[in-house]
Amino acid sequence: MSAETFVKGKTIELRKKHIGPSCKIFFSHDPIKIVKAKGQYMYDEKGRRYLDCINNVAHVGHCHPDVVKAGAQQMELLNTNSRFLHDNLVLYAQRLQATLPDKLSVCYFVNSGSEANDLALRLAWQYSGHKDVITLENAYHGHVSSLIAISPYKFIQLSDTEQIQSVHVAPSPDVYRGKYRADHPDPASAYADEVKDMIHRVHEKGGKIAAFIAESLQSCGGQVIPPPGYFQQVAQHVRQAGGVFIADEVQVGFGRVGTHFWAFQLQGEDFVPDIVTMGKPIGNGHPMSCVVTTKEVAESFMASGIEYFNTFGGNPVSCAIGMAVLDVLEKEDLQGNALRVGRYLTGLLEEQKEKHPLVGDIRCQGLFAGVELVKDRLKLTPATAEAQEVIYRLKEQCILLSADGPHRNVLKLKPPMCFTKEDADLLVGKLDHILTELEEALGLKFHNALSVENESSKRKPTDENGRQHLGGLAHGGGSSQEDPQIAKRIRS
Amino acid sequence: MSAETFVKGKTIELRKKHIGPSCKIFFSHDPIKIVKAKGQYMYDEKGRRYLDCINNVAHVGHCHPDVVKAGAQQMELLNTNSRFLHDNLVLYAQRLQATLPDKLSVCYFVNSGSEANDLALRLAWQYSGHKDVITLENAYHGHVSSLIAISPYKFIQLSDTEQIQSVHVAPSPDVYRGKYRADHPDPASAYADEVKDMIHRVHEKGGKIAAFIAESLQSCGGQVIPPPGYFQQVAQHVRQAGGVFIADEVQVGFGRVGTHFWAFQLQGEDFVPDIVTMGKPIGNGHPMSCVVTTKEVAESFMASGIEYFNTFGGNPVSCAIGMAVLDVLEKEDLQGNALRVGRYLTGLLEEQKEKHPLVGDIRCQGLFAGVELVKDRLKLTPATAEAQEVIYRLKEQCILLSADGPHRNVLKLKPPMCFTKEDADLLVGKLDHILTELEEALGLKFHNALSVENESSKRKPTDENGRQHLGGLAHGGGSSQEDPQIAKRIRS
Repeated sequence: MSAETFVKGKTIELRKKHIGPSCKIFFSHDPIKIVKAKGQYMYDEKGRRYLDCINNVAHVGHCHPDVVKAGAQQMELLNTNSRFLHDNLVLYAQRLQATLPDKLSVCYFVNSGSEANDLALRLAWQYSGHKDVITLENAYHGHVSSLIAISPYKFIQLSDTEQIQSVHVAPSPDVYRGKYRADHPDPASAYADEVKDMIHRVHEKGGKIAAFIAESLQSCGGQVIPPPGYFQQVAQHVRQAGGVFIADEVQVGFGRVGTHFWAFQLQGEDFVPDIVTMGKPIGNGHPMSCVVTTKEVAESFMASGIEYFNTFGGNPVSCAIGMAVLDVLEKEDLQGNALRVGRYLTGLLEEQKEKHPLVGDIRCQGLFAGVELVKDRLKLTPATAEAQEVIYRLKEQCILLSADGPHRNVLKLKPPMCFTKEDADLLVGKLDHILTELEEALGLKFHNALSVENESSKRKPTDENGRQHLGGLAHGGGSSQEDPQIAKRIRS
Repeated sequence: MSAETFVKGKTIELRKKHIGPSCKIFFSHDPIKIVKAKGQYMYDEKGRRYLDCINNVAHVGHCHPDVVKAGAQQMELLNTNSRFLHDNLVLYAQRLQATLPDKLSVCYFVNSGSEANDLALRLAWQYSGHKDVITLENAYHGHVSSLIAISPYKFIQLSDTEQIQSVHVAPSPDVYRGKYRADHPDPASAYADEVKDMIHRVHEKGGKIAAFIAESLQSCGGQVIPPPGYFQQVAQHVRQAGGVFIADEVQVGFGRVGTHFWAFQLQGEDFVPDIVTMGKPIGNGHPMSCVVTTKEVAESFMASGIEYFNTFGGNPVSCAIGMAVLDVLEKEDLQGNALRVGRYLTGLLEEQKEKHPLVGDIRCQGLFAGVELVKDRLKLTPATAEAQEVIYRLKEQCILLSADGPHRNVLKLKPPMCFTKEDADLLVGKLDHILTELEEALGLKFHNALSVENESSKRKPTDENGRQHLGGLAHGGGSSQEDPQIAKRIRS
């Protein structure tokens, strides 16, 4: 099949007809048609090259030849379910186990991060015999119904917010915008104490804690890095209540943080979760995922008497691909690259923070980075529209980035792990230019920061790039929700 | 990587150490190590060839070269998410739509049958604004928590059977063993009326029906073929109550039934479900799946304001593979083959029923077939242990079959669609021989049928092949649950 069958307009028309409208597209006013990709680059139907700064799934680089080869060779030989013995399954489980603390030794292979987190809940419910789950503010853990229920990022958008009684939302350990900030003497303990208090309140109402679940670094929730020591304390409180600690590494695992293979390891050597879930980068795009837990949790799940069968999970092709990803990570020292390029990128972004009043906070850990834009550094007024504007202008310059977080004002960087210092230079150079223009338009200067309240801090159903504010205007789309004053400044 | 890295014993040892013990293996007393497969054949590490009569995932034949090629080529070019435009996505959606009634025009691509059925529930809940779900006795719809809740096949096994209040179990429309049988003048209406009455009872308790969900042919539930007209009447009752009809085609779709592409079409041309879910065979083993629904249901889901994003769902590789599967089905006329070989197989199995008192019922539709074994044709006493014995003895003769249903006494045939008449001859020839031996051991003859009550009709947590009765003995495994009298007869 050729790379392009239809002209772009026809593709858009067919997509509108046949694909669920809830499946959003990037840059809906002028979506991109990508026909091929290699390394950290994607190419549209006209051959235009985009620098991919958002795709953490293409972990070792788009279409890495070693991964493609491993998948193709195994597809030719055998692809069947795990009810037969196969060496790939056990070899891969061994390889994964070797990256983890010894205690985490039992794997369940599934097809997606959502399947992994749902199974983690089932394991926790069965092991603890309890039902209540503590999740974090702004958390996103997947799209199946059990996970929407523990994902405030999703369920706060529902009109008839019917939060399940056994789900409890603890404050996000965000030391920039959260309840306890960088100036607090011990934010880790303060946030952990919030969880402890929550457990008491749950107990008072007759509930029993099955699990605390958190991404090791909150991604969709705004690229939040919890203060070290927080997880240890939370785990202690949760275990004391008979529950387990689930570390969701779906977005952030596999060396991305540079210093460690798993992001939960940033909390300290003494922290071991009871369950770890993996996903996105695990197969470089191949649909696969894994849950790893302790022997005790696995045996308790077994004791329920219910078999767990996953048709595609752990098939020889997925395992071959998973092993190839681990091989490439090692061979090309991509964790080392994430550390080196991540540090370089952090330096560049810190300079941007010095220079631009719009940059409120820089949160970097390897090739996981967040740039939080604010219109007022004291009030932390989210620069939502400006973040969207940055995204759209970068796209016009062939750089793919996204903005996320509860206010959609955090520029989210999670590029393929082969991202280079030159890529970082290119990105930050363009960002610098765009921020300068935006600040000029807004009249934003240091010591003279405008205190413009954003029209709404609540996320609205809109396109993937949240383009309900400035975006429509600057691109001729028009929007009834824009603030004419800001728009005028931006256009000028 | 070579086809075998470890000796079999080492593979078993590593599996025990690193793979969740709830993930069962076929023939746990002596599992098979499969290293390659082609068409309807699988090969173990010693080169022994097995005829695969159970793998409905390897739909167009294991490792079909056209499917492998399509996947490998697209993996080399691009594998990314559906937030970018891509022609494979819309082309494949068009192709799938062309196999369905016009009304079913909107697709959501996901990674597994479980993800598909969970999304179907979310669509139904949102569209109807209701919560209650009607499911069938013995139904299995997937492994995520929302689906365990609507899968009696699974949840009856839980020790603390805590059935969710909004889930209602209607009688299985099984005209052999169910409430209304072949001698009933109108079993379709009788079973549909059961659903109608159930809806009334739900309403009386203040509930509201969101959906009725059923496999178009119940597979794990015992290869049950509902009487034609049943779905139409159920759909009418459910829609009148404001709910939708979900047809689960995960196990039985894509031409398997021979006469039609979708098994729900067996009910009659006038039947159109509101939601159809697909899975297993869709990608010949590649992890992919789809939900198709109407524009109305899709728009109502959109109106919730919540985006649906599935990281891997609908990626260009999955779509390329899905298209290749449809191409092979057409090019090799595999639906026609299912019809022809299915009819031939039905004939052979009907002869077995004439000959063997153990064969209580034959239910065939294309290459979907069930052979229900009973020890007494009047009392329908399930021949559970005998069914397990058949499975084990066939395995020793290199034929792979499984037994399922609530009593695990239904031999379940769902081979790759390239299954031939010669394969059918081989299978039924061996089956004939085994049944003859078993009946001799049991002293079972026509007009002199023994009325041996089975020790338990309830499924127990045991190995995938349910080997808690005769099996252990005949293979030296030993079992505390065996009936010594039967065992003695079998051994003699």
